[in-house]
Amino acid sequence: MTRAAKQSGEFDRIARYFAPLAASHAGAFGLTDDAAVITPAPGTELVVTTDTIVAGVHYIGDEPPELIAAKLLRVNLSDLAAMGATPRAYTLNVALPSDIDDRWLEAFAGGLAEDQARFEVTLIGGDSVGTPGPVVLSLTAYGEVPASGAVRRSAATPGDTVFVSGTIGDGALGLRAVRGELSGISETHTAALIARYRKPEPRLGLLARLAPEMALAAADVSDGLVADLGHIADASDVAMVIRADDIPLSTAARAVLDRDPEALAMILSGGDDYELVFCAPHADSDVVEAIAKECDVPVTAIGKVEKGPGVRVIRADGSGITLGRTGFTHG
Amino acid sequence: MTRAAKQSGEFDRIARYFAPLAASHAGAFGLTDDAAVITPAPGTELVVTTDTIVAGVHYIGDEPPELIAAKLLRVNLSDLAAMGATPRAYTLNVALPSDIDDRWLEAFAGGLAEDQARFEVTLIGGDSVGTPGPVVLSLTAYGEVPASGAVRRSAATPGDTVFVSGTIGDGALGLRAVRGELSGISETHTAALIARYRKPEPRLGLLARLAPEMALAAADVSDGLVADLGHIADASDVAMVIRADDIPLSTAARAVLDRDPEALAMILSGGDDYELVFCAPHADSDVVEAIAKECDVPVTAIGKVEKGPGVRVIRADGSGITLGRTGFTHG
Repeated sequence: MTRAAKQSGEFDRIARYFAPLAASHAGAFGLTDDAAVITPAPGTELVVTTDTIVAGVHYIGDEPPELIAAKLLRVNLSDLAAMGATPRAYTLNVALPSDIDDRWLEAFAGGLAEDQARFEVTLIGGDSVGTPGPVVLSLTAYGEVPASGAVRRSAATPGDTVFVSGTIGDGALGLRAVRGELSGISETHTAALIARYRKPEPRLGLLARLAPEMALAAADVSDGLVADLGHIADASDVAMVIRADDIPLSTAARAVLDRDPEALAMILSGGDDYELVFCAPHADSDVVEAIAKECDVPVTAIGKVEKGPGVRVIRADGSGITLGRTGFTHG
Repeated sequence: MTRAAKQSGEFDRIARYFAPLAASHAGAFGLTDDAAVITPAPGTELVVTTDTIVAGVHYIGDEPPELIAAKLLRVNLSDLAAMGATPRAYTLNVALPSDIDDRWLEAFAGGLAEDQARFEVTLIGGDSVGTPGPVVLSLTAYGEVPASGAVRRSAATPGDTVFVSGTIGDGALGLRAVRGELSGISETHTAALIARYRKPEPRLGLLARLAPEMALAAADVSDGLVADLGHIADASDVAMVIRADDIPLSTAARAVLDRDPEALAMILSGGDDYELVFCAPHADSDVVEAIAKECDVPVTAIGKVEKGPGVRVIRADGSGITLGRTGFTHG
């Protein structure tokens, strides 16, 4: 959720002040990828990813602590999933104001414990300090990939098929629902969207299985489908053409869209889905779908990679969709 | 500096809420060591350590940003040094209020750049977010050790000699000097103590060289000499007997002590020195001193490891020194 809440000035800040510090380390990827790779020994590489969240900024503050914990861990695991990494461990840094009590901490730790068991990761270190300000939480997750096996954003090739896992838009719509900004859909649908927003499902396993079989480029959908596709397009120096009508939607998101066609912009650009978006050779599409089925991860082909720059979203008739809010325009 | 500023309630918090989450990972050391070890492959292990600092809590807030950056990196490198690890990389998480401007960030990044070159480490990732509260900075450092080669706190054995690097007490006295609480010593001495407090020197290299030669137990002096010896004693289930008169002091600390013998308590328990304290077999003392000389790290034998619990500080005549503030008492 960190990324979705970032201001462009903060991306600039990373690029301007911190990326140069990382320039000499190949595995740092210039701080532009989902995660960094350390190569401590031949045979394996360690994938490291980290997120910081602040109460009142990245979450409201009165959420159940176990959900705050689960989401913080899961968004990092989602980054590992997008790299094709298998999670191993994480570290946690917490800065806590004095009104955080034992009950809050117990629930927070309980949320972590539950997801540790579920995702087979374990806390290995951290720091806990007091602060006169709001809660600040940083989680750093570590995963393994075979040497040179990390899935990067930079390997998309014209002709590739663009796939996405699960359904798109639920995270952004869930945030609107949490804020009480979503009306006219059933309670069941509202609850489903809120659950997706609060507890994303990292799509572990799939890219780790696919990566040895084929060339892949991938990201997780944290900033928004179009923005994250844009990151892949930029890193790979290619264009993406996405078929709006093929983007997989949950029944809840479909209900929102049926009522308000303008919600499509939110679905395409809202972020917080923590699904995978990845590009694979067209010839391997059958393999992708077969392995995805084995991994129990639904995948949908939503477009293709072409020469050129940028991301275009088109209707079935070939007409383009303009999404001004995301800063990309096209004919 | 994080550890020195910690309240005992926060140690409890780690032990109670977070350590159980780490219990299943052998390399987590129950969160009681300086750093955690991940073993991604045979041959090497990765050592991970992390600290969080908060403006107004762990530093005043108006320090030169390059010094804040350097100290944050160095205290983590000191933890790696205490594990016998060779630093490789670090990640950085920053939560910044809106009054942090480009000039601050540039200076902060400059401090990191200088120390990156000096210590041959590189930034590999991180996160940058806004906060309505004070600056919160978390740095996680990664180092390598040969497989099973990490220097732990738990290997001290009765008969071992206790060594310390450099001089002790300068960090705590430097903090008093920063606060204007130290009077009656020369400007030169005051400046030397402040410099030690603001820019500690991580003692890299020494334990990495010694570890293959002999059994070692070690910590860095962050909480205070007696407290950190206590950590080793507890982890190793041994007692320490330290000779107060053999503890190495800088000329500045000596000047303070000559003026105020009560300052000894501060020197022994004040922390923030980021020197190494380690236990090595008595028979290997000559090897320790020879390799320390090669590493250009001054070391001094200050005591011995015995059976039993706790840490005793004695005078030359065998009488004990009581340091009530650190919570340890003895006859």
